[in-house]
Amino acid sequence: MKKKFVYFFGDGKAEGNKDMKDLLGGKGAGLAEMTNTGVPVPPGFTITTEACRYYQTHKAYPPGLEEEIEANLSMVEKSMGKGFGDPENPLLLSVRSGAKFSMPGMMDTVLNLGLNDQTLVGLTHKTSNRRMAYDSYRRFIQMFGSIVLGMEHKDFEVVLKEIKRVKGVRLDTELDADDLAHLVERYKEEVKEVKGIEIPQDPREQLKMTIIAVFDSWDNPRAITYRKLNNIPDDLGTAVTIQAMVFGNMGQNSGTGVAFTRDPALGKKKFYGEYLLNAQGEDVVAGIRTPNPISRLKEELPEAYGQLMDIYQKLEAHYRDMQDIEFTIEDGRLFMLQTRTGKRTTKAAIKIAVDMTNEGLISKEEALLRIEANQLDQLLHRQIDPSAKKEVIACGLAASPGAASGKVVFTPDDACEWNHEGHRVILVRTETSPDDIHGMAVAQGILTSRGGMTSHAAVVARGMGKCCVAGCEAISVNEEAKEFRVKDLVVKEGDVITIDGGTGEVILEEVPTIEPELTPEMLTFLSWADEIRSLGVRANADTPEDAKRARDFGAEGIGLCRTEHMFFGEERLPIMQAMILAKDEETRRSTLDKLLPMQKQDFKDILKAMEGLPVTIRLLDPPLHEFLPKTEEEVERLSRKIGVPKKEIARKTEDLKEFNPMLGNRGCRLGIIMPEIYQMQVRAIFEAACELVKEGYHVKPEVMIPLVGHVNELKVLKEDTQRIAQEIVNSIGVNLDYFIGTMIELPRACITADEIATEAEFFSFGTNDLTQTVFGFSRDDAEGKFLFQYVDKKILEDNPFAVLDREGVGELVRMAVEKGRKVRPHLKIGICGEHGGDPSSIEFCHQVGLDYVSCSPYRVPIARLAAAHAKLKKSAREDLSDTR
Amino acid sequence: MKKKFVYFFGDGKAEGNKDMKDLLGGKGAGLAEMTNTGVPVPPGFTITTEACRYYQTHKAYPPGLEEEIEANLSMVEKSMGKGFGDPENPLLLSVRSGAKFSMPGMMDTVLNLGLNDQTLVGLTHKTSNRRMAYDSYRRFIQMFGSIVLGMEHKDFEVVLKEIKRVKGVRLDTELDADDLAHLVERYKEEVKEVKGIEIPQDPREQLKMTIIAVFDSWDNPRAITYRKLNNIPDDLGTAVTIQAMVFGNMGQNSGTGVAFTRDPALGKKKFYGEYLLNAQGEDVVAGIRTPNPISRLKEELPEAYGQLMDIYQKLEAHYRDMQDIEFTIEDGRLFMLQTRTGKRTTKAAIKIAVDMTNEGLISKEEALLRIEANQLDQLLHRQIDPSAKKEVIACGLAASPGAASGKVVFTPDDACEWNHEGHRVILVRTETSPDDIHGMAVAQGILTSRGGMTSHAAVVARGMGKCCVAGCEAISVNEEAKEFRVKDLVVKEGDVITIDGGTGEVILEEVPTIEPELTPEMLTFLSWADEIRSLGVRANADTPEDAKRARDFGAEGIGLCRTEHMFFGEERLPIMQAMILAKDEETRRSTLDKLLPMQKQDFKDILKAMEGLPVTIRLLDPPLHEFLPKTEEEVERLSRKIGVPKKEIARKTEDLKEFNPMLGNRGCRLGIIMPEIYQMQVRAIFEAACELVKEGYHVKPEVMIPLVGHVNELKVLKEDTQRIAQEIVNSIGVNLDYFIGTMIELPRACITADEIATEAEFFSFGTNDLTQTVFGFSRDDAEGKFLFQYVDKKILEDNPFAVLDREGVGELVRMAVEKGRKVRPHLKIGICGEHGGDPSSIEFCHQVGLDYVSCSPYRVPIARLAAAHAKLKKSAREDLSDTR
Repeated sequence: MKKKFVYFFGDGKAEGNKDMKDLLGGKGAGLAEMTNTGVPVPPGFTITTEACRYYQTHKAYPPGLEEEIEANLSMVEKSMGKGFGDPENPLLLSVRSGAKFSMPGMMDTVLNLGLNDQTLVGLTHKTSNRRMAYDSYRRFIQMFGSIVLGMEHKDFEVVLKEIKRVKGVRLDTELDADDLAHLVERYKEEVKEVKGIEIPQDPREQLKMTIIAVFDSWDNPRAITYRKLNNIPDDLGTAVTIQAMVFGNMGQNSGTGVAFTRDPALGKKKFYGEYLLNAQGEDVVAGIRTPNPISRLKEELPEAYGQLMDIYQKLEAHYRDMQDIEFTIEDGRLFMLQTRTGKRTTKAAIKIAVDMTNEGLISKEEALLRIEANQLDQLLHRQIDPSAKKEVIACGLAASPGAASGKVVFTPDDACEWNHEGHRVILVRTETSPDDIHGMAVAQGILTSRGGMTSHAAVVARGMGKCCVAGCEAISVNEEAKEFRVKDLVVKEGDVITIDGGTGEVILEEVPTIEPELTPEMLTFLSWADEIRSLGVRANADTPEDAKRARDFGAEGIGLCRTEHMFFGEERLPIMQAMILAKDEETRRSTLDKLLPMQKQDFKDILKAMEGLPVTIRLLDPPLHEFLPKTEEEVERLSRKIGVPKKEIARKTEDLKEFNPMLGNRGCRLGIIMPEIYQMQVRAIFEAACELVKEGYHVKPEVMIPLVGHVNELKVLKEDTQRIAQEIVNSIGVNLDYFIGTMIELPRACITADEIATEAEFFSFGTNDLTQTVFGFSRDDAEGKFLFQYVDKKILEDNPFAVLDREGVGELVRMAVEKGRKVRPHLKIGICGEHGGDPSSIEFCHQVGLDYVSCSPYRVPIARLAAAHAKLKKSAREDLSDTR
Repeated sequence: MKKKFVYFFGDGKAEGNKDMKDLLGGKGAGLAEMTNTGVPVPPGFTITTEACRYYQTHKAYPPGLEEEIEANLSMVEKSMGKGFGDPENPLLLSVRSGAKFSMPGMMDTVLNLGLNDQTLVGLTHKTSNRRMAYDSYRRFIQMFGSIVLGMEHKDFEVVLKEIKRVKGVRLDTELDADDLAHLVERYKEEVKEVKGIEIPQDPREQLKMTIIAVFDSWDNPRAITYRKLNNIPDDLGTAVTIQAMVFGNMGQNSGTGVAFTRDPALGKKKFYGEYLLNAQGEDVVAGIRTPNPISRLKEELPEAYGQLMDIYQKLEAHYRDMQDIEFTIEDGRLFMLQTRTGKRTTKAAIKIAVDMTNEGLISKEEALLRIEANQLDQLLHRQIDPSAKKEVIACGLAASPGAASGKVVFTPDDACEWNHEGHRVILVRTETSPDDIHGMAVAQGILTSRGGMTSHAAVVARGMGKCCVAGCEAISVNEEAKEFRVKDLVVKEGDVITIDGGTGEVILEEVPTIEPELTPEMLTFLSWADEIRSLGVRANADTPEDAKRARDFGAEGIGLCRTEHMFFGEERLPIMQAMILAKDEETRRSTLDKLLPMQKQDFKDILKAMEGLPVTIRLLDPPLHEFLPKTEEEVERLSRKIGVPKKEIARKTEDLKEFNPMLGNRGCRLGIIMPEIYQMQVRAIFEAACELVKEGYHVKPEVMIPLVGHVNELKVLKEDTQRIAQEIVNSIGVNLDYFIGTMIELPRACITADEIATEAEFFSFGTNDLTQTVFGFSRDDAEGKFLFQYVDKKILEDNPFAVLDREGVGELVRMAVEKGRKVRPHLKIGICGEHGGDPSSIEFCHQVGLDYVSCSPYRVPIARLAAAHAKLKKSAREDLSDTR
């Protein structure tokens, strides 16, 4: 069978339908579907993406395409009762691109194609509107010139301006037919002057040149960038839809508009749109005239308005989602030009999904799948208090959500210095580079005047979870002078600003921020996610405050309670330091005893905050040198405080120094070499837990031993832990459920998971360290020094510290799960690395059969939704393979 | 069936045989075998290791053992025509331990058991030799007292000395029967005094107590240490052999001796032994009387001598190996008491193996299996020139082979300082600790006054491949005063000494050392290994000198030529530094151009040295900061030399600083971020290779890209390398075979080896880095700080940097081999980590199907032998499973 390259639509039926986006593009499939739905659509036809791909390769039409276009053109002529190029009754066409994925503003459109000096006369005659005809002609020349011939917009702009200046008018609409006729001549001259050729008079030549221009536009730089940004494959190609023109500019009985079937900002159920009378589509978008709200149409053209009301409801019901529609009214008659799923804010998306479910339009599952989990992020950061007064001085790209205030600094070194002195800082740079990492790390937020959503600043800030406003071109940064300017305003080092990475706003002075709160729709929505998902969601929380927040956000336990901070603090650090500097084990033990009551209280508070839920407590992980003073001054102070000579402190610091601390004496290694530290921690945990049980609380501690690579490490430490735990349980005389398990964060732990599972009562994947060792990347070094370039050069698809690397790290995770469960079939397995809050990684965790993910409290809602998605997608895939 | 715990031997036939070492121990199996062979052996029986193990657990004889012993005792009585405890004609017994593995000096023996005040009379009567009877009795009391009752040797020594003093004699033999009778009484009193009990008079009680003492001696500290040192399992247990006594001390017609069937020091084919007339076995070993060389026996007891000649040849032929035999002549009649495989030096072992093969006694395969590959190590280090004059001042343990001279230093910091000033140093410590690592690393060798073969110094030095003399108790180290003393001699910091870790000698002044050389036997022996093995052996060599040495030792190519050193050197380093400090790529490129001709010459020299053999060249691996100056002074000098401000150098150094350099911007990461360095190297390699081809040489360069974790890294760099290579090949106009491959040294590379193999033309496992990442151990930190303790506490069996960890690292290696070959069936795969020179690791490499191992030139012979062993062992295992 011959390949079909063209699909007709019109007169109430179409060859395509909404499921043919691959072939017809979103626009073509939408027009076909609308036609089939019985909505009035101007007739036309769509050239497939296959034709485009053929053209990309061969730089020529595929065989037969020319003939198919001709045949379809005839059908359009017949439907419209007009002839293409007919000087008496000319058919005019619109030519639009339309790829599978909506790429707004990226591809180009030519309207009024088919106009030439002859058909112009016919059009004038037919419409009895000479002004409209010339207006159409000049628009055609301008679009053809810029899109097909590659002229610049300003080539035409200067001519138009000159004519308006001579005429003394401000608006295009104030020009009369003669003015426009003159403009057409001047445009033609301009084309000839700039490009050295004339716009072809032959409508078929116009059409072919335009189709090819659309094909070529797939590879224009804006399109390529958009695809790169949105992960759209480069080899899809675009379809081309050719459709009979209808005219919204045939007088006050005509018009054109765009609308959303619901409010795209807040999600309210309300028809929401704008229109202009006597205008063509581009006028609404161009912003030259201010459009009217859609409600006004009811008064101006009540019949068309009524029809539109019927149609929008029909379309929404048909597509079962909020639609973004375009329409034109030609001499009182309504035509629908486009319908597509409308873009919306996350807030609106949730409300619409919940409302539509309640209306019975969609199922809960569909509702859940309509929101990408990461979208929730913008609702879960600290936000500027909406009731606060604020002076917005500039607006850049909303590159990384959250709001933060701080003193302005202009170099990474200054950032560190100011920070060291106790100030919160905002780092302001023209753009950032890998050398700035140390400054970015200590800043509250980052503001750059250059660079886009994938600039270094934006990517690194998102990775660090810091707010960032990037590419704020309104500000001009002078790093030498340590100031930035916005017009006349000068902001100097040390001045306070606030930035909102969720909106892109830059605000003078400090503005109060508020904790994010979950709306009632969000609560409903997340409860549905909970109904679906099978993967548990816990939080990484080290303090009672974090634990409470996590619980409010729906965490079902703590998956990682780090205990490092329990050794810091004004009162505690000197004790820890004295312990490290002690001469012998006995002194170390007696020193550690002083920390015991404090840490016991810490554990009591956290266990109480999570009453009834499991709390995984990781024993001390970092190497000891992290606790020793760094600067001369700190050494001095410590020496005075604990009476150890400075020289002795220096010597110990030197002894403990490591070439690669990440791979050094930390985690369980420390627990084995210096057992008294873990023993104190275990004592604190179990005394806290047992006392709480005695007080009537229900607590579930899980002791997690970090950095195990060999089962013997775990064995030794587990025995020790059990011995102490049992001692305390017996002496306090209570029943306590507890587990002892390990973090799986080394390749060797994954490979020998079957052995480790003989001892471990649970596994928790520490995918941060696992990613470091599997790749051999030191995160501290890699993210600043080469990882950014790796992603940029597409050596890696994603930063593996943000999105779990399924091929490498994931393969080991899968292996560990299988081996672990072979030995201990009901082994509880979770993940507590940062990947536990990343939707793609959560999907993977569900696939390989983990029991839960654990993430930062703020990401708990995201994880709940992502877990539901994972379940739904897996079921869908399984259904699919069942029916095969 | 009832379990049999006792095996009889005597009268020309035995229940056991030589293959029953597990059950009867080496000694018991040997006596049984000898009996079966028709060699005259005093009758006896062996209690099995099973009985011992039962005793260990139950602290009681297993049921039935008592009865079996009684029955066997009767058979011995019958065979000897004597009665155990018979006052007229007493049977005396020897009781000896004998485990599966020979543990010389570790277990204990009691002779003349069965003597008491009554049987003494019978013995006197029967032998007509009162002196001999009392001599036997006093020996029995002494042995029973010390071994069974746990008295100290000196308890008896003082009594004996006193009697000799009173008598005025020097030798035991000068004491007459009355003296000995007196001695017996005095010994009895001594026993009663020290232990408060009397030696039992009942022979059966004597026997039972002795058997239990032997069982218990399995767990004496010396035995435990020996097993730990020699990797002998703790749960084997020992057998007990009870045998009729024969007497070498029955006058000048009697005697006893030990002999080797060949020379155990040099391996010459010559019966080699010593004997004493009128003596019991222990006298020969004890060294109180000087034994005679065996040849003298021919004159003294010609008949027995003739018999012995027949028997030793019979035994060697029977056991097909050099034997270590013990014999006793009782009144002219020869009895063989023991035969076992004789210990020998490596030199002798090789000569004996080669000779026996040539004699047709054993096959080449057997010859190869008789020498452990690691034994060759002692022949392959620099040795002290045998013709050199040397003043040996002390002798310690030969803890790590090789010889080195240097200035004496006493602290690790001094070691670094002296080394930094260009001196070669020997670090002398009382004992070393993990804090000394940095000093050990820069020292030529290590000398300690305390600690054994498994002390920190010994283990770490062996790991570092440095020579070490440990536990040299003759020296007394004063670290405060920075000197050590040997008696009156004082050696101060800065004095030069030489140590020989192969002999344990400490020598004053510098002594010339020589390169090891292969003897003709060694060459023959290794050629047989080459015939057998299928695994290739290459060397890690960075210079033409190393390459030549490797080739002399039999390397079949270079498996790893590191290129780091080509950037160092007086002339080159400043260029490299200027490149690193350059402002832009262009300057970097022009600076690198200056290194090109030098490196090209380096490659020419190495390729020429390895003509006809493959040379794997690894592109630059270390991070750039390793090339920058470290000290203030070096910065100053560089600044003056290349005209870059000090501040600029400091800034760049700061920029390049890394938290974990091991996981930082190095290897292929650097190659991608700063491509000009690899491009220069590739240019140098291919210009060198092509010019050599033009000159008529046959060269085979293999370019190895390090630290690849993702196939895309390799892809990008391979394309670049190929482009440059092809350019040069074309422009010089030659044919050149070359490969481009990668080091597999990251877990991710193993896991995704199938993807990497789509690009890599060869794999070479970098198991050093792979071990670091699989375990998450920084070698620099771990070996000094906790790995030593891990091995000591048995958390790990071996240092995984010395012996490949099969469970973890090995599993990834296996996975990578499988995945790689699935994609590219003939993928050449080698290993170039240090494990390539370790026999156990080489065995593993053979098992998983690698094509070659690559190791340091000095270990090439070891690898050749180990590879042959691996093949032979695998074939043996496969044969075994075939017949199942």
